[in-house]
Order: sequence, then structure tokens, then C-alpha cells
Amino acid sequence: MLSTDSSGSRFTPLVVVELASDTKEEAIAWLLSRIRDTQQNGGAELLVEQLGPGVVAEEKENPNMFLVGASWQRLLSGAEDVGLFKECSDGSMRGFTCVNKHSFKDFKGDGDDFLSMAECQYIIKHELDTLRAKDETHVPGYSQAKLYPGKSIIRRLLSKGILIQVFPLHDKEELKRLSFSWYEKVKLSLQPLDDIRHYYGEGQALYFGFLEYFTFALVPMALIGLPYYLFDWEDYDKYVVFAVFNLIWCTVILELWKRCSASLAYNWGTLSRKKAFEEPRPGFHGVLGFNPVTGREEPLYPNAKRLLRIYLVSLPFVLVCLYVSLYVMMIYFQMEGWALNVHDEDPTFWTGILCFIPSIIYAVVIEVMNLIYRYAAELLTEWENHRLESSYQNHLVLKVLVFNFINCFASLFYIAFVMQDMVLLRQSLATLLITSQILNQFMEAFLPYWLQRRRNKKMMRKVQKKRTMQGVELPLEEQVRLEADMSTYLGTFDDYLELFLLFGYVTLFSCVYPLAALLVVLNNITEVYSDAFKMCRVFKRPFSDPAANIGVWQLAFEAMSVIAVVTNCALIGMSPHVKAYFPDSETQLILWTVAIEHGLLAFKFILTFLIPDVPKHIQIKLARLEFESLEAFKKKKMLEALELSKSEQ
Amino acid sequence: MLSTDSSGSRFTPLVVVELASDTKEEAIAWLLSRIRDTQQNGGAELLVEQLGPGVVAEEKENPNMFLVGASWQRLLSGAEDVGLFKECSDGSMRGFTCVNKHSFKDFKGDGDDFLSMAECQYIIKHELDTLRAKDETHVPGYSQAKLYPGKSIIRRLLSKGILIQVFPLHDKEELKRLSFSWYEKVKLSLQPLDDIRHYYGEGQALYFGFLEYFTFALVPMALIGLPYYLFDWEDYDKYVVFAVFNLIWCTVILELWKRCSASLAYNWGTLSRKKAFEEPRPGFHGVLGFNPVTGREEPLYPNAKRLLRIYLVSLPFVLVCLYVSLYVMMIYFQMEGWALNVHDEDPTFWTGILCFIPSIIYAVVIEVMNLIYRYAAELLTEWENHRLESSYQNHLVLKVLVFNFINCFASLFYIAFVMQDMVLLRQSLATLLITSQILNQFMEAFLPYWLQRRRNKKMMRKVQKKRTMQGVELPLEEQVRLEADMSTYLGTFDDYLELFLLFGYVTLFSCVYPLAALLVVLNNITEVYSDAFKMCRVFKRPFSDPAANIGVWQLAFEAMSVIAVVTNCALIGMSPHVKAYFPDSETQLILWTVAIEHGLLAFKFILTFLIPDVPKHIQIKLARLEFESLEAFKKKKMLEALELSKSEQ
Repeated sequence: MLSTDSSGSRFTPLVVVELASDTKEEAIAWLLSRIRDTQQNGGAELLVEQLGPGVVAEEKENPNMFLVGASWQRLLSGAEDVGLFKECSDGSMRGFTCVNKHSFKDFKGDGDDFLSMAECQYIIKHELDTLRAKDETHVPGYSQAKLYPGKSIIRRLLSKGILIQVFPLHDKEELKRLSFSWYEKVKLSLQPLDDIRHYYGEGQALYFGFLEYFTFALVPMALIGLPYYLFDWEDYDKYVVFAVFNLIWCTVILELWKRCSASLAYNWGTLSRKKAFEEPRPGFHGVLGFNPVTGREEPLYPNAKRLLRIYLVSLPFVLVCLYVSLYVMMIYFQMEGWALNVHDEDPTFWTGILCFIPSIIYAVVIEVMNLIYRYAAELLTEWENHRLESSYQNHLVLKVLVFNFINCFASLFYIAFVMQDMVLLRQSLATLLITSQILNQFMEAFLPYWLQRRRNKKMMRKVQKKRTMQGVELPLEEQVRLEADMSTYLGTFDDYLELFLLFGYVTLFSCVYPLAALLVVLNNITEVYSDAFKMCRVFKRPFSDPAANIGVWQLAFEAMSVIAVVTNCALIGMSPHVKAYFPDSETQLILWTVAIEHGLLAFKFILTFLIPDVPKHIQIKLARLEFESLEAFKKKKMLEALELSKSEQ
Repeated sequence: MLSTDSSGSRFTPLVVVELASDTKEEAIAWLLSRIRDTQQNGGAELLVEQLGPGVVAEEKENPNMFLVGASWQRLLSGAEDVGLFKECSDGSMRGFTCVNKHSFKDFKGDGDDFLSMAECQYIIKHELDTLRAKDETHVPGYSQAKLYPGKSIIRRLLSKGILIQVFPLHDKEELKRLSFSWYEKVKLSLQPLDDIRHYYGEGQALYFGFLEYFTFALVPMALIGLPYYLFDWEDYDKYVVFAVFNLIWCTVILELWKRCSASLAYNWGTLSRKKAFEEPRPGFHGVLGFNPVTGREEPLYPNAKRLLRIYLVSLPFVLVCLYVSLYVMMIYFQMEGWALNVHDEDPTFWTGILCFIPSIIYAVVIEVMNLIYRYAAELLTEWENHRLESSYQNHLVLKVLVFNFINCFASLFYIAFVMQDMVLLRQSLATLLITSQILNQFMEAFLPYWLQRRRNKKMMRKVQKKRTMQGVELPLEEQVRLEADMSTYLGTFDDYLELFLLFGYVTLFSCVYPLAALLVVLNNITEVYSDAFKMCRVFKRPFSDPAANIGVWQLAFEAMSVIAVVTNCALIGMSPHVKAYFPDSETQLILWTVAIEHGLLAFKFILTFLIPDVPKHIQIKLARLEFESLEAFKKKKMLEALELSKSEQ
């Protein structure tokens, strides 16, 4: 797919910039000139061209869509700007520099496959994001869209609603190949992680890597849990063995994942890549001042004020929400008790149905509460006015995580530790696991796909009406407009959250329901397919995200595994088999349980320390890189000194 | 004090190199020529001169002592080699480079006070350490002292016993000034930390900084604990309040210390200083191979073998030692019980004395066990064959720490949780605290001082006999020989260990003996004086150590504060006042205690996360430095591109 820009040269369109349809001409002209201007003049030096009207030009069609691309030279220098790491001829990963470009493994000249399309798109996004205002005081034609020297133009346009979206284009051919090797063929092989990374970037690939790793890691637990379920082993010793194995296994797999993720990130070049200085997020506001780090003009917002907002508003709000959630749960248990009572007194068909009503109401209420809370959490976190996107994300994740944890597990905790009804616990656990798994996959993949396919077919029919078919390929204009209408993928947040809750089902009550691991393994296998499917067919292509690890989620999973130690020890201590060992003294029983729990926790922490986070061979490679740069520095110094002494003579 | 080297130029002697008195002439000549040789020839380019015979030349006097110094040019380029950070004119800390030397704050020309004497000595030590063999196969005259290209000469000479010691010289004038402002004047002011750092380097200064910080941090606990002791408050509520305050306070002070230490390390330039590649330690042996990081020839030792030695020999050994220690403790309690019995049956003067005998025997046995264990731990850690000094130190610290912890606190734990005798616990705690404090300060400062002073006076008398007095100053030759005979300071290990144990006395049983904090505060105040005194008067000057934090000790203190939560909760749960609140059910009491303990632990961890480790203003300074280097890199790239495009035209 090639496109021609105004100067007549043809280029591959990589990224689409969509402005509001009523954008003023002068603003468009100014933006395009800034994008095309040379870097020495402070421009982005990219190629940009307006998207022509589609074959099925409609009234409501937005004319202000622009295709952005770049020359190979520009992309290479951009790769150096963003600090891309690439494999050298000697097998090590190094930061790409244009000067040394020939020492990199796959570099064969210009225009080759050295940079993947995802990398090119990431570079273009970075160059657009760092396109800064010079001496403009506002966007031409929009006096309310203030600018000051150094302000990112794209971010201002976004925050003022002039810019609707910037998104990368799919590559139909590559996508077809990827989706075939990923989920379309029936196979017993691993996911093509390198291909996923090549197409979607490191953040996505790490998620799928984690999903795969997590599935394999659960297999031993599933295998060991199976006979417990099949043969109904309710034996004390066996349960304790299973629980202890589980707890240690959780720690080990989380530690090993760090090593695994470090290996992946090293091979993908993101492990030692330095993060560029982060710009303030589009919604950030404050009094204009000078950033103490960069010295650039930008809005400043005092940290103390933000902390006040967090501790005096957000924290109490979250606590109140948790309280409401617990309160609703109590009402549910009361309603259920009442319904059971009614049914027991006078068992008819209608009272039998009545028994299900509390559960249904509770499930609906939980979903509604989740939605409202998510919305409120986003508003609150926005209002906390974080300067950085990463800090905004962390605060949002924390809020949503805590609430979801309570919503999901509070009823189970209540059944386990207040009602102490293990049979009911097992039933609830199974019901929750299975329904949530089926609902999730339907809601997140197949429903959106069905909607998307309807749109797709409509577009196809329209195009076919207008002109004779040329294969099944849509022309570029239609393809772009179709993708612009696709839903936006909002990041891996919800996917990780789902895994996190599943991890909770497996570990928190593992000694009561050993089958959970098996169910989660089965779920994860279908999850791979449905997630892959939704990435390839439902969503707009996301920009790649050069992640080096799964970030805050590692912490969340580790916290869950600590909580699991406590719950499992408590459950074992409460089991009648164990109680039978201490017939005289409940005190003895509790003291032993607590002692074992503390021992396990201590063992967990020691294990975390003992297992190095980065595998030895990667540590060596990283150390070698550092050593070489030190030596190069020394050599340079020596040469300078030599030259100096020569010039002095 | 100036000295003249063989070429006749005068230089300030900074470091003394002492070879064995029977070293062969050819080895000496070779070593001196390598030290004097220019850097381009692979030498160290330092000035070196043999120390003349003293006024009181004796038979046994070692003639092979050498004074090492360097020209100012050499020291400045060495400062760049070791990556010294210095304050710039704009107030920021930057890595020193000779090219930009004039942009640094205190740089006024050559030969000024830009580098402190400690820094110069550190630089010389570094240059000596990195003096490498070229094509020599062995040290001349010593065919068994093998060399290979790239082997550090000094380390080989040390490991073969040809080199006895390398130590920096004291500066009498500066030492006098320092000791006056530090401990000689009666004052109510803080320690002169910057001066300590100037004279002894960052590692020492951080220790004294920590000692001071720790003392001040304990003051609130001491003040709150005092009324508990004075008014004999044995009230449940008050005790709980005190214990909870203590636990939270411990966490807070440890977190705040990280910030404090980051501030100090930033101002001293060690926070962002990059560590040079670490050489193998002198005792490290293995099959000669190529280091995968540097590519240099050096001995290699497989990590798997080391791990086997650690887990199959060292770990069981430590466990056996711990068992023996506990066993000895049990014997002690039995002996004491028996002695008390004898005394009760027939109380005479002799049986009264008999009661003290078990304690005395136990105290002596503990000291002996500590000594033997320390020796064994050093042997074992040596045998584990660690490549790096830092890893050797960490393994040694861990071994000694665990054993000392058990030895010190096992009897207290036994009294508290097995005998449940709170009165005895309080007594033992007080006895242990006070005796250990008095014994320690006597053994570590005043006894060595007294011995040293005797030597000193003997030397003085001899000198006075030989020639007429010229003031009270000793001539350089005598001064050097005197310092060579002083004891070597073995690092901050023992000092930190002492503080660690004191911290344990304060926190582990704080709710039983609130006065402990006050005693430790008093102890610390005298400790500052005795430690300062011993540094200035007893020991050889140590080489400065560019530490950025207190390292593994931070972890040790944090672990202690976690254990303290557990012990304090258990003690409160066991107190009769609390038991009275749950008259019917011991189970309820234990469950509440465990719940509160878990809550406190969770709160501790959250607090650790919430308090940032580096203060905001230093984070900003560090970020600015990084940002500037990124910008400089971009600018350089832009210029290169411009030049390239010009040359192409």
C-alpha cells in the first residue's frame, strides 16, 4: 500500500491522524507545515498526506484524515532518538546509532526490514508527540488553545478536542500470517511470541508471554489437584502437603517469571533501554512555570496538594466504596437466608425460583457497582492531576484492583471464615470461576467481533455496489476509514486484571478446591485464543509499548500469594481433620497454625531473595556492555590526553 | 611533610607500601619501575621513594618501606579514572573530567585543595590495584608467584605474602583539628560529618551519620518510655499504645534514614557514582580462563560448585552451630535452676556465690563460642571462594549476624515465651544491655588506646634519646614506622553489629522494658566519643570507601523491625492485663492478637512503599543530570548529521 504526498514522492502510510471534521483550514495548514518542516527548523520532518474521499463518499464522512509516513533516513534517525536496542552482528543487544548502523545484524542498506512496522509506527508517534510549539501563543484559528514554547502540539490539540485520534494502521498481509500461526491452525505449539512482539510491540507480547507462562506454571498444580478431586481425598496430611506445595510453588513461579520476563525483554531490547524523559499527560493542568528538571515552560502543580487530594478524598472514597460493597454482600447473605427459609417452610416451584433471585440480583448489583466504581475511579484519578501517564495508571490500577479484589472475594471470605461452611465455599468457588470465565470470553471477544463483522460487511457491500471487485481487498481509503471506526484497545489492564482474579481463585482457597487450577488452565487455553482473536479482528492496532516487565502487576500477584499463605493456613487450621489432632486444646492448634504460617511467610521472603531476578547469562551480557562503555570512555580519554600533550609540544 | 623521590623532585607522601623485609632486590626494582612507568607503557605513573632508616635504626627494622605520591596532574586524571563526583559551580554534582575541570566549584588551579587527602589516597590505591602484569609470567625472583597478562600485580604480591600492607598516612595537623571538633571539646553540637568524610571517606562518615541519626531517632522512644518506668505504669492500654507507637516509629525511622542517607551520599557525590568493574579478591582461585565480561584472562570458578559448597557445607554448619548455641543455653538454664535449688534448700554464703557461677560460665562460653564461630565463618566463607570482595563480605555478614542474633537473644526469647517470666526478662534485658555496653566500649577503645600509647611513648623516648627535641613532632621516618605498627581498622562491620544488637534490645521487647531506649541513647552518646577516639588515636588510617548507603545493614535493621512486631504482639497477648479482657476464651485472645499483628505487618509494608527512598529535591537533581546528558547526546547527533550533510554536498 503506497501513498503519494504533496511533493509527489510515494511513501508507505504508517499512522493515521484524524482531526475533527470542523477543524479550521488555517489550523490544518499550520499543523501539516509543522509536521513536514525540517528538524533544524523544529519540525518533525515526516511525510503527510490527506486521505482522499472513499469510493463510497458519504455526507457524514470526515474529510480531515491524514496519513503519516517517513523516509528511511528519518526513521533510522528516529530509532536513535527513541533509544531503540537492536541485535548486533556479535549477538549482543546495543542501542542503535546511525553512525554504527552497519554493525547491526539485520541492517542491509536502506529500505530493508531492519525496523519492524510496529517500531516505525512507534517512532512516528514519538516524533509527533515531541513536536513542540516554537513562538506560537495559540493554535491558529483557536485562540482558546493556548501554546507556549516547548509545549507538545499534539497533546494540546488532543486536550482541546481538535485532534480526535492518532492510530497506527494494520498490515493486512502480516496480520493474516500472524493470526494463522497464532490461533487459526490447530496445533500443539507455543504462541509465536516474537511475531506478536514484531506486530504489536513488547507490552502486548509480554502479556501473552505471561499468559502462556502462567498456564504452564499451573499445570503441575492442576495435575496434583486432580486426584484430590477424583478420589475425594479429604485426608489431613494430603491436604497440608498440597497446600504447602501450592504456596511454595506460587512463590517460585512468580520469581521465575521475573527471570523469564528479563530474558524476553533482553532479547527484545527493552531491558536496558533508557526511558526518555516523560512529558506531562494531556489532561495535566496547573500554573505555568518552569520544570525544575528540563527548565522548559510547563504547568506546575504542587505535590502537597495532590497528596492532600489522594489522602483526604480518594482514600476515604475508596474506603466508603469498600464498605458499601461489604454491606451489599451482607444484604445478599440475609436475602439468601430469608429465601431459603421461605423455601424450607413451604417448598413449591415458585419458592424454588425465589432461591435463585438473591444470587441473580447480587451478580447484577456487583456488575453495576464495578462499572460505577470504575467510572468514579477514573474521574478521581484524573482529578488528582498526576503529571505523568505512568503515575496516573498506577493510581488507577491500585484503586480498581482493591475494589475488584473485595468484590470478587469478600463473599468467599465470608463463607470461609464467618460461616465456616466448606461445602458452600467449594460450590461458590466453582460457580464463580466457571461463570466468570464464560461471561468474560463472550463479552470481551465474541460480542465485539460480531458487531465489528456487521460493520465490516456493510462497508464491503457498499464498496462492491460502487465499483467492480478487485480481489477481496478493500482500497486504502476504505480500509483506513474502517479501521478508524474500530474500537480502541485500552491496553492490557483488563486482561491482567482477569488473570489476577483467576490467580486469586487458584491460590486463596486452593486447599479447599484443588480442581480450581485445572479449570483455570482450561480457561487460559481458551483465553489465549479469544485474546488473540480480539487483538487481530476486533480492535484498532495499538501503538507498541516498549515495556521491560509487567510492572505493577508483578507486585499485585506477589501480594496475592502472600495473602494466600494466610488464608490457606487458616483454612487448614479450621478443618475438622486437623482439629482432631488437638482434641484438648484449641489454643495449641491456633498457635501451631500461626507458627507454621509465619514460617512459610519467612521462607517465601527468603526464597524471593535467593532467586536472582535476572538470569546469569543476561547479567553477564549487561555487565559486558557496561564494561565496554567504561573502557571506551577510558580509551577516549587517553587519546584526548595524547592529543593534548602533542599540541602542547 | 615533603619527601624527595629518586629523580630529586619533592612530593607529598600519601600512601605507604610495606614489602616483606626479605624481599629480593630484583622484585623490588621491578615493582618500583612498574609503579613509576608512564601510563602509556602500562605503568601507574606514580612517584615512589624508599623510606630512609629512622633515627633509632634498629636491627629488626624493615628497610623495605616505600612512600608513594603523585603529581597533581596524575591525581586529577586518576580522579577521572575512579569516577569521582564533585560539586560544580552551579551547585550540582557531576562526574569529574579533566577537560571540564574549570567548571568545578573549588578548582582554582593545580596543587590546590580541590581533592582531599583521603581522595588522593583512594586514587593512589586504585591506581596501584589496577597496575596490571604485561607479559611477565611471574614476579622476578619468585617463580612461584605466577602472573598472566592483566593480573593485578599488587593483589598477586599480597596473596603471596611479598607485600605486607598498603596503608594511607595520617595527616597530624588535620587529625588534630578533626579530633578537637569531633570529641575533645565539650559541646552540644552535631558531629562534623563533612569533616569526617573529608578525612576518612564516605563509608566511615555514613557510619557516624547513622549512629547520630539512630541516637536522635531513639530520643522520642526514650522520652515516652521514661514515665512508664518511673511511674510503674502497668496498664494494658498504655502498654499497647507504647508498643504500637514503637513499631510504627521503627518503620518510619528506618525509611527516613534511607532518605537521609541518600541526601548525604548525594552531597558527597557517591549516590550516582558508577561502580568500577570489580576485580577478583586476592584469595580467589580457580582454573585460568577468560572472564566473560571483560574478556581478560583470570581464574574462573563455576558458580554451581560455589552454591554446592554454600548449601551443602556452610548452611548445615551454621545450623549445627545454632543448635549447639541453643543447647548450651538450655544447659545454662538447667544449671541455674539446679543452683537456685541448692541455694533454696540450704542458703549459705557459698551457695549464694554458686548462684552466680552458671551466669559467669555462660557469659564466658558465649564469648568463646562467638570467637570460634567468627573464625570458622571466615574460613568457610574464604573456602566458598567468592570472586568479589563484596560478595565475600555479604556472606560473612549474614553468617555472623544470624549467629550473634541467636546468641544474644535466644535466652531472652526463652525467658519470654517458654518461662513466661516477665520480671526475669526485664532483669536479664537490663543486665545484658548495661554489661555489654560497658564491656564493649572498654574493649574496643580504651584497652587498645592504652596499649598504643605505651608503644608511642616508648618510641618518643627512643627518639628523644638519640637527638635533641625539635618540638613534639616526630620526624617522618619515625611517624611512618609508628603508624605501620598501629592496629588495622577492619571496617565498620563490628560497629554496625553492635548497633544492630542494641536496636534488637530496644525493639524486640520494648513493651516489657520501656527504659531500654533511654539506656541505648546514653550508650550511643558515649559510643560516638569512644568510636571517634579509637578512629583518631588507635588505628591506622583506613582507605576511604565510596559507599552510597549502609548496604546490607539497612536490610538487617528492617528484618529486626519485622521480628519486633511479632515478639511485641506476642508479649502483649501474653500479659495478664490483656488476658483479663478475654476471661472466657483464650482462643479469642489469640485470634485478636494474630489479627492485630497481621494488620501491623501489612501497615509496615504499605508505609515502606509510601515513603519514597530518595527525597524529592534530590530526585529532581538526579533527573536533571540524566535529562541533560540525553539532550547533550541529541545535540551532538544533530551536529554530526549537519556535518555529514555538509560533507556530502
